[in-house]
Amino acid sequence: MSEFDLIKRYFTRPAPGATLGVGDDAALLRIADGMELAVSTDILVSGTHFLPDTDPFLLGHKTLAVNLSDLAAMGADPRWATLALSLPKADEDWLQQFSAGFFALADEHGVELVGGDTTRGPLNLCVAIMGEVPAGKALRRSGARAGDDIWVSGRLGMAALGLAHLQGRVVLPEDTRSACLAALHRPQPRVALGMALRDIAHAAIDISDGLLADLGHILECSQLGAEIQFELIPKAGGEGIDEVLFRQCVLAGGDDYELCFTASAERRGEIEAVAGKLQLPLARIGSICAKQGCMVRAGDGSEIKITESGYDHFK
Amino acid sequence: MSEFDLIKRYFTRPAPGATLGVGDDAALLRIADGMELAVSTDILVSGTHFLPDTDPFLLGHKTLAVNLSDLAAMGADPRWATLALSLPKADEDWLQQFSAGFFALADEHGVELVGGDTTRGPLNLCVAIMGEVPAGKALRRSGARAGDDIWVSGRLGMAALGLAHLQGRVVLPEDTRSACLAALHRPQPRVALGMALRDIAHAAIDISDGLLADLGHILECSQLGAEIQFELIPKAGGEGIDEVLFRQCVLAGGDDYELCFTASAERRGEIEAVAGKLQLPLARIGSICAKQGCMVRAGDGSEIKITESGYDHFK
Repeated sequence: MSEFDLIKRYFTRPAPGATLGVGDDAALLRIADGMELAVSTDILVSGTHFLPDTDPFLLGHKTLAVNLSDLAAMGADPRWATLALSLPKADEDWLQQFSAGFFALADEHGVELVGGDTTRGPLNLCVAIMGEVPAGKALRRSGARAGDDIWVSGRLGMAALGLAHLQGRVVLPEDTRSACLAALHRPQPRVALGMALRDIAHAAIDISDGLLADLGHILECSQLGAEIQFELIPKAGGEGIDEVLFRQCVLAGGDDYELCFTASAERRGEIEAVAGKLQLPLARIGSICAKQGCMVRAGDGSEIKITESGYDHFK
Repeated sequence: MSEFDLIKRYFTRPAPGATLGVGDDAALLRIADGMELAVSTDILVSGTHFLPDTDPFLLGHKTLAVNLSDLAAMGADPRWATLALSLPKADEDWLQQFSAGFFALADEHGVELVGGDTTRGPLNLCVAIMGEVPAGKALRRSGARAGDDIWVSGRLGMAALGLAHLQGRVVLPEDTRSACLAALHRPQPRVALGMALRDIAHAAIDISDGLLADLGHILECSQLGAEIQFELIPKAGGEGIDEVLFRQCVLAGGDDYELCFTASAERRGEIEAVAGKLQLPLARIGSICAKQGCMVRAGDGSEIKITESGYDHFK
């Protein structure tokens, strides 16, 4: 199978939302009046972001999901994506499953694949995702204000616990295990939440590197600090799990792709209404303060110190 | 050096042409009224697209150049790029030179780096390039018409000859060698040419896989054929070079990043004026015909058959 057959067979779909999709030197897109283009890119590398034997359908899902999560954190409406693939070989079965997983999630979110590149090399998946957001309405990291509530969606540390389980660093009870492995393999980008928060939240980020690292970006960009109550963070039950590892996963585990956002206390009712409408748990875990730095308190009020604040590819 | 320091130090530049550049979950861009967004992505993999010991400054140049070439082939005005890097390690000297080469070319073309991703892994460089083109004016592969002249910019086969020289498959004379190695290491994307051809050319493509393969895409998309005169193709002098290898490089050598375009005979004067204005040689090498397929004739009128019509990553 040639490179061009491969693209035609597995990655060429109609793109009615584009002026021109796959098959020319570039795609052509029209941005609606009054909208800004939000664009982000994420690269997934075998051995770094996923195990080489990862189910290709799930990998196709995750490759798009981590990119959609970046648009969710901006409050953008996903529209288009490009996909650049480096593949050791043209394995038709793998390609069929990978593209099925990718397009299943793309269809869920109305995303059209409009371009890409395929080459021979180490397994490596690079997506550029594009969406629209009303001009001036995007959720930035820099908008947090002193006194804001700090909110998170879903449960944190699930993906990290799932990975720890696969790596044999912990043995999870059956019920927890399936939820954690689902979080690791099939993250659900919080696109609808991001869009619903456009006129409510002051700042937002997706939790890809770990809560403390990602909240840290909001604090740095907003030049503020935060205090968090560990007990208030939604998480898996920690029974029978080493406490240090458990706290590490909850506070610094990456790969959750939940949203962390800040909003003034007056908006609590609206945010709870959004949670109900989306049937997505949203929890208030602390607040933004003027004093820089991030303090995490245990139930007894003592400070929780953790060694690593998040994932860094070069530390 | 952490991943975030690395991004700050080497890849964070002011982006006055963007609403929001590097440093949030996504960049925010405004497309001018009446313009369409042209977007394309290309991935460069060590060992497949470049030798592992390639000079990092030149690699930075080429990584952006091959992407700019795709926008040139659409007649688009380059505006923004994202860069996703997979790196075996955070080598500051390498990063400093790579980013210098990347930004030197970006500055030449007014391109702003607005986002990206860095991760540990095999050396692998993925750019998504974005530009603007007046709505409806983009140069597509599908617009060729029977009777059109076929034009190419620059000289073909230079990069392939340079690579053959580095691989010891040919020994080039000094003057040819330097020109061929320059074509291989520092390709010049024909951005100004593409923009100048918006209202003149019927179809265009950049020659990245080889003349016959890329012209073949125009013919396939336009459902037409072509006849080319080998003698009319601008190329390096073939003295002392095996004829089969030489023809292979000229007709099927990839990596040239010149433009191949078609236009009606009435536009010859305008096209020659563009060549003069841009000081870029443009040559008429044949014509589009209704009969499908592509025929290449030697000076004596005989047909030249070549075994491989272009580069394919999976053949």
